[in-house]
Amino acid sequence: TINGDRLWDSLMDMAKIGPGIAGGNNRQTLTDADAEGRALYQKWCEDAGCTMGVDEMGNMFARREGTDPDALPVYMGSHLDTQPTGGKYDGVLGVLGGLEVLRTLNDLNIQTKHPIVLTNWTNEEGTRFAPAMMASGVFAGKHTLEWAYDREDADGKTFGAELERIGWKGDEKVGDRKMHAMFELHIEQGPILEAEGKDIGVVTHGQGLWWLECTVTGKDAHTGSTPMNMRVNAGLGMARMTEAAHQIAMAHQPHAVGAVGHCDVYPNSRNVIPGKVVFTVDFRSPDLEKLTSMRSQFEVKAKEIADELGLGLSIEPSGHFDPVTFDEGCVSAVRNAVERLGLSHMNIVSGAGHDACWINDVAPTAMIMCPCVDGLSHNEAEDISKDWAKAGTDVLLHAVLETAEV
Amino acid sequence: TINGDRLWDSLMDMAKIGPGIAGGNNRQTLTDADAEGRALYQKWCEDAGCTMGVDEMGNMFARREGTDPDALPVYMGSHLDTQPTGGKYDGVLGVLGGLEVLRTLNDLNIQTKHPIVLTNWTNEEGTRFAPAMMASGVFAGKHTLEWAYDREDADGKTFGAELERIGWKGDEKVGDRKMHAMFELHIEQGPILEAEGKDIGVVTHGQGLWWLECTVTGKDAHTGSTPMNMRVNAGLGMARMTEAAHQIAMAHQPHAVGAVGHCDVYPNSRNVIPGKVVFTVDFRSPDLEKLTSMRSQFEVKAKEIADELGLGLSIEPSGHFDPVTFDEGCVSAVRNAVERLGLSHMNIVSGAGHDACWINDVAPTAMIMCPCVDGLSHNEAEDISKDWAKAGTDVLLHAVLETAEV
Ligand SMILES: NC(=O)NCCC(=O)O
Ligand SMILES: NC(=O)NCCC(=O)O
Repeated sequence: TINGDRLWDSLMDMAKIGPGIAGGNNRQTLTDADAEGRALYQKWCEDAGCTMGVDEMGNMFARREGTDPDALPVYMGSHLDTQPTGGKYDGVLGVLGGLEVLRTLNDLNIQTKHPIVLTNWTNEEGTRFAPAMMASGVFAGKHTLEWAYDREDADGKTFGAELERIGWKGDEKVGDRKMHAMFELHIEQGPILEAEGKDIGVVTHGQGLWWLECTVTGKDAHTGSTPMNMRVNAGLGMARMTEAAHQIAMAHQPHAVGAVGHCDVYPNSRNVIPGKVVFTVDFRSPDLEKLTSMRSQFEVKAKEIADELGLGLSIEPSGHFDPVTFDEGCVSAVRNAVERLGLSHMNIVSGAGHDACWINDVAPTAMIMCPCVDGLSHNEAEDISKDWAKAGTDVLLHAVLETAEV
Repeated sequence: TINGDRLWDSLMDMAKIGPGIAGGNNRQTLTDADAEGRALYQKWCEDAGCTMGVDEMGNMFARREGTDPDALPVYMGSHLDTQPTGGKYDGVLGVLGGLEVLRTLNDLNIQTKHPIVLTNWTNEEGTRFAPAMMASGVFAGKHTLEWAYDREDADGKTFGAELERIGWKGDEKVGDRKMHAMFELHIEQGPILEAEGKDIGVVTHGQGLWWLECTVTGKDAHTGSTPMNMRVNAGLGMARMTEAAHQIAMAHQPHAVGAVGHCDVYPNSRNVIPGKVVFTVDFRSPDLEKLTSMRSQFEVKAKEIADELGLGLSIEPSGHFDPVTFDEGCVSAVRNAVERLGLSHMNIVSGAGHDACWINDVAPTAMIMCPCVDGLSHNEAEDISKDWAKAGTDVLLHAVLETAEV
């Protein structure tokens, strides 16, 4: 098994980079803090005897050689970028847990047949640049490199320019690597494992997602002197559509969620009726029919609301993946590892999107989840226990060992 | 009568300072553009033979001497600051119309018994620093100077520091001046005069206002992995309260309005359930009972919504004035002027707040309104005709002449 203290120390060291305002992290993708985190990760990997490859999306691949020169590598990994007010473990555990696996293999002098590669995927969170899981998406052929480079943040800076600016645009063509398998360890980010008292979630499926970026157009006008019946109030439209997204998700229970997380009001002045609001609806379900139905119901309802208020409306998908079924073989490797280690466990569906969801399309993939306190994530107060982190990383070690063959 | 071409040229020259993005202006208070506008106004006033006094709130007073050294001055004025996406006439017409009156008196070599003072009031709009009509409010003793200095903009800069920075903090104690009367010319910012085909609105009353700054507190959490029943969604709360403000205003028809113009969502990430939303409700009515009732109904309803969703809620008034009845004598002076000039006119209630609303508490005050196209204001497309501008300014000239005595 792995060294829980060493893993924890690394988690705490990484958390010092890009501190948040309430004990968590703000290490958003392609910021200076992201660059600093990458440099520390590279140093740690090289200290562990790995070579580092970087592709044109800034994905970082630390390689530990295997004994068979013809064998495809077994991949592990997740992401080091965070939400603007994010936790210390979301993504980071999967990367530094993987690092701890490499260090443990070194300690125990274990040679594997297949090489092992640990990945830090760029821009998993998708807050600064939508969509989420952007670089694993390019890797899996879901987006072109050019399209990804053109994504803009709220200040109009492009992904491509920012990747270049922080110095992490590599030479390697994205998606050229072939994988024997890929494993991602991640915190659950939901309440189920903790409530059920299980150490480990064996992730069999992942929810699908639609992000719908809605632009509602009204007419800026004075809040005092414009009579109620002459208003074309984009803010009121946004409010009704936010409620509609909620009601539609409620009507699709169980196994469906929906909310508006992002909302910008223009000109955002106390005495101006909003002339424009841009907001994003996030719908998810493990059930493709429900997912599709929520999207289409919302589109119909939003149009109704817009028409009633005389508003313009455009709805652009800004993120999408279908529900995922992970690879049976890889899922078995995870389950075998859990059983070998005698840990309590259950099957689970990932509520969040993960790089593994895209990679599953191009290579046999599975995920390992460990609980988090109160199911809380995307919050600086996100928390896990040292024991949970160790148990998850032990499972990663054993699943990778079984797959990479000793 | 005044020189309509000269007035129009001055309006267009001022509009070159702090241009907007769609043909209007962004000359928000205490910005560099505001400072530039003030300098041009000062130069024009001095060229017209006036002396300039500046008080500790940056209010600018251009004085034309009268023949009676004991007579209190007759004031005119409005504001040169604009909304972030504002028009070229809101406030500006009242200041530059006043300047045109001074120039006309010079052209015609008219001496008045009372001195005449033209004022540019600081921060009328209240977008960058709430509340609106801030400096006339300090002048009228509604706010203390210290309180005003401590107001913060969205970047945390204070009013006091920004006033100093742009170099327009004067020495004169605020509110020390005594006024014989005050007249404010302003565009209607609503649709009534144009619809009724009238050149001039004789403003008899003004609507009262409540600005309620609402802070809704939920819990940041993942939009994907947090089950619907575990969410404490501050964004949903904001949406329901926005709808409630609208419904409450609708239930108080006629002569009542309500809307949310300003709304900031935190952390504003597509995949984070909002943990906090700060927004401002703007309620107005010329009827004190309706105004009070809208506020209290909203407070009750917002609390209900918050309780239902498990949200924290604080509601802080961030702007308030009671409905205004303007001075009978000053209103008569306006009506006499309109009739003398043979202009079509009607009595009107101001839908917006104006510096005149505060000054009316400390000196006899009235307002003159001219129509604006489609009733549109607080929009870069705000428009008036040259004839409307001239007619309004002619009325200002005659009302001031009657009051200042030749
Ligand atoms: N794991 C995670 O929070 N990923 C971000 C993408 C998503 O919103 O699910
Ligand atoms: N006239 C004007 O737009 N004033 C701003 C204050 C208000 O919101 O009424």
